Amino acid sequence: MELFLREVREIIGGVLHGDGDTRITGVGGLRHAREGDLAFVKDFKYYPEAHLTSASALVTPEKIDLPKPQIVTENPYEAFIRFLQRVAEEKKLVIEGVHRTAVVEEGVKLGPGVGLGAHVVISAGAAIGAGTIIYPNTTIGLGSRIGDECVIYSNVSIREQVRIGDRVIIHGCTVIGADGFGFLWDGEEENIKIPQVGTVRIDDDVEIGACCTIDRAALDATWIQRGVKMDNHCHIGHNAVIGERCILVAYAKVGGSTILGRRVVLGEDVGVTNNITIGDRARIGGGSRVYRSVPAGARFWGSPAKHLAEEKRVQASLRKLPWLRKKLVELLKKSDQ
Amino acid sequence: MELFLREVREIIGGVLHGDGDTRITGVGGLRHAREGDLAFVKDFKYYPEAHLTSASALVTPEKIDLPKPQIVTENPYEAFIRFLQRVAEEKKLVIEGVHRTAVVEEGVKLGPGVGLGAHVVISAGAAIGAGTIIYPNTTIGLGSRIGDECVIYSNVSIREQVRIGDRVIIHGCTVIGADGFGFLWDGEEENIKIPQVGTVRIDDDVEIGACCTIDRAALDATWIQRGVKMDNHCHIGHNAVIGERCILVAYAKVGGSTILGRRVVLGEDVGVTNNITIGDRARIGGGSRVYRSVPAGARFWGSPAKHLAEEKRVQASLRKLPWLRKKLVELLKKSDQ
Amino acid sequence: MELFLREVREIIGGVLHGDGDTRITGVGGLRHAREGDLAFVKDFKYYPEAHLTSASALVTPEKIDLPKPQIVTENPYEAFIRFLQRVAEEKKLVIEGVHRTAVVEEGVKLGPGVGLGAHVVISAGAAIGAGTIIYPNTTIGLGSRIGDECVIYSNVSIREQVRIGDRVIIHGCTVIGADGFGFLWDGEEENIKIPQVGTVRIDDDVEIGACCTIDRAALDATWIQRGVKMDNHCHIGHNAVIGERCILVAYAKVGGSTILGRRVVLGEDVGVTNNITIGDRARIGGGSRVYRSVPAGARFWGSPAKHLAEEKRVQASLRKLPWLRKKLVELLKKSDQ
Repeated sequence: MELFLREVREIIGGVLHGDGDTRITGVGGLRHAREGDLAFVKDFKYYPEAHLTSASALVTPEKIDLPKPQIVTENPYEAFIRFLQRVAEEKKLVIEGVHRTAVVEEGVKLGPGVGLGAHVVISAGAAIGAGTIIYPNTTIGLGSRIGDECVIYSNVSIREQVRIGDRVIIHGCTVIGADGFGFLWDGEEENIKIPQVGTVRIDDDVEIGACCTIDRAALDATWIQRGVKMDNHCHIGHNAVIGERCILVAYAKVGGSTILGRRVVLGEDVGVTNNITIGDRARIGGGSRVYRSVPAGARFWGSPAKHLAEEKRVQASLRKLPWLRKKLVELLKKSDQ
Repeated sequence: MELFLREVREIIGGVLHGDGDTRITGVGGLRHAREGDLAFVKDFKYYPEAHLTSASALVTPEKIDLPKPQIVTENPYEAFIRFLQRVAEEKKLVIEGVHRTAVVEEGVKLGPGVGLGAHVVISAGAAIGAGTIIYPNTTIGLGSRIGDECVIYSNVSIREQVRIGDRVIIHGCTVIGADGFGFLWDGEEENIKIPQVGTVRIDDDVEIGACCTIDRAALDATWIQRGVKMDNHCHIGHNAVIGERCILVAYAKVGGSTILGRRVVLGEDVGVTNNITIGDRARIGGGSRVYRSVPAGARFWGSPAKHLAEEKRVQASLRKLPWLRKKLVELLKKSDQ
Repeated sequence: MELFLREVREIIGGVLHGDGDTRITGVGGLRHAREGDLAFVKDFKYYPEAHLTSASALVTPEKIDLPKPQIVTENPYEAFIRFLQRVAEEKKLVIEGVHRTAVVEEGVKLGPGVGLGAHVVISAGAAIGAGTIIYPNTTIGLGSRIGDECVIYSNVSIREQVRIGDRVIIHGCTVIGADGFGFLWDGEEENIKIPQVGTVRIDDDVEIGACCTIDRAALDATWIQRGVKMDNHCHIGHNAVIGERCILVAYAKVGGSTILGRRVVLGEDVGVTNNITIGDRARIGGGSRVYRSVPAGARFWGSPAKHLAEEKRVQASLRKLPWLRKKLVELLKKSDQ
């Protein structure tokens, strides 16, 4: 990448102060930026760091008294992200065509512009949409359908008969469509496996982190709706439904047949039990364990999860508990006298 | 799949009411079933849904007043599972023979009917039993022995010298036989790696979920006994023993050298520390952290885990804690007067 | 392996009692050792087991009254580990040369003695240092640089432009350099992906367990410093820094931009939130959730994490809570009279 600062301004907007011919060859955070980098100053709290940075130019919320060229814009963070998108576009790793070692079995349909990396396996009857890129050593199962413009990173395992929409991103070592965890105790000796003959449906614009698992349904489909974003190490049980644009932070786990409404946020390491409902826009704090349905819009926290305000009161009292105990014992002695 | 309903009755038993010539082309849950599907009605609580379903036929606990053909049987759920097993059998994905891109190194023994998917690697000296199927991009390490009729899904990593029994199922991106986590602080500067020269032994009829890890022992073997069922994201530390027919729900983790008896159930996200013993048939509730040995048959819950009844009392009191605190402070003021 | 016991003594030091011609063909723990095995007796607590072992020879802290040859040494455990290192060296699985199915793309630099297993993919512009061994089905991304004498096990996914030092060990199904989890809500409808254009830097002598994820930075680099040891299922968020020789036990998770000092220990399943600092040599107990910075040398435990002594007091009081509640209610009744 090499751009003049005035070209950067054209991409992100704002007002240029200083030399528009400054060459921008990369991006960096204020602290680690090097010469040639563009960095951004989110607000005045970062002015001291801005004075120390080695970046060659800054995106700032107002003209700062600094001998460095600046692009002043109302929201430097968002402007900078627009620039990052441009950088990412340029850096975009395109796999062109089908690698000679990729295995494309019979009856597979590949859209125009599909890129398949080395040792990718597309099993019989699968379909890969236009412009989708699949990185090396990834496996697509029998009859699975991947939409257009998806990016599936390396060493991903997608089982048979899964349906994935457009512009879906799936990170490495994630498993889509493994058997849901279902057994029936025969009453005497054995756990009989309940066959999982359903599937997984993932809608458009979903992003799924690395080392995640989304199990196939016993019947019907486990369903990840449009725009859901999942961090690494998440797990979705069989027959669960994750509503539109939910955010699941790392290690969030959703039990079987549980339904999340739209725009629910599960913090890191939240566990939601099976067969319950989390209402639209509910937010569950990190580390919570949710055993009961949560109403729409509610904020819950704790194990078991409670309303955030209640959990905070409990937590505050908890720290006082040794003192409470001591005082109570004193009172009891007094009262016994 | 296409069966007449009277053929379904032959598979699952029970009494047929209505047209035995109804064609069954699939299975579904009451709510999502489509025309051609068979669905089941577990008990009377599902009668309202039964009236709304689009399924073409139902398995019911008694003749329901509905203009749909029904198979009446004492336990519709179990009967339906028997049918699912038949469906699964028909849907079974068989990999026939050794794919031309699979790598079978020297000294490998393949039993009759072994199916190896594309890019599977069987390292030197390994043995794969009769009828075992290994999906694409999976690696079997040097000298490892896999039994008969196993199914190992794609992108699994099995290290060297591991022993796996018959009818074992291993889901995608699981790692069997990675080094146990053992270091010795040299007292000054470095953590010295303790070589893990043991192995992993997995007995017959075990099922292991996706993204699980079962570490190899420092010495001897980490041992998963017959009939154990593990959900996704579980972890078994080095030298641990998991007793016959234990159930480990997602994210269950068992520390090094810990021993689980027979039929222990670890709920979701349970952590069991190292070097302890969990007695036969003990059940540990979801989210618990177990720091001490648990007696046979006990039910434990909480962090640290306690007897279930005790933990429930603590949890109940905990919600009252802010009130207790307030009341105590009032009493203290009174008592000071 | 076959050694005479006197040769073992030469390797580990100490004083030999008994027949130096005893043949040692393996190693084992006291309980499971078989004839031919060497076992060790850590201290007197293990003397009863020493009397029952089938091992052919023992490493002991003093001459035990037993009709078995013994090597007596001050620290049997450490001496035994020295022997294990020798065993591991002999057992070492060397992949020689580049397997005919490995894909080495253009511009790749391979050092002398590099071993690449079957179906390994080294993407264009990558560099692999001398003596590094990469097991089957692993993917190295565009332009990534791996140092000398590393071992990368099978089915690992390493993304583009990552830098890894010397003698690094990475276990199976681990993902290095997946996109950090960053989205910007557009205020109306969508979560806009913040491009993650940074990288990951892993220094010398790091070991990373199976099924771990280390995300690439938004800008700059996520940094794992020298000698860090990570167990399975760990997660490092984007832009985090893990200081020299930290120990992270299984399922430890470190949020984005958080900084761990040197020799920090995170117990099993510890979650550290983003944007905080954990001081040098701090130790966080298993299962803790850390929401605030922790000073150097501190021991913290709990959710939220507190000083260990405080958390222990709270835990102790917690078990008394139902009793406290009962007593308080009695006092209140009395006081009302």
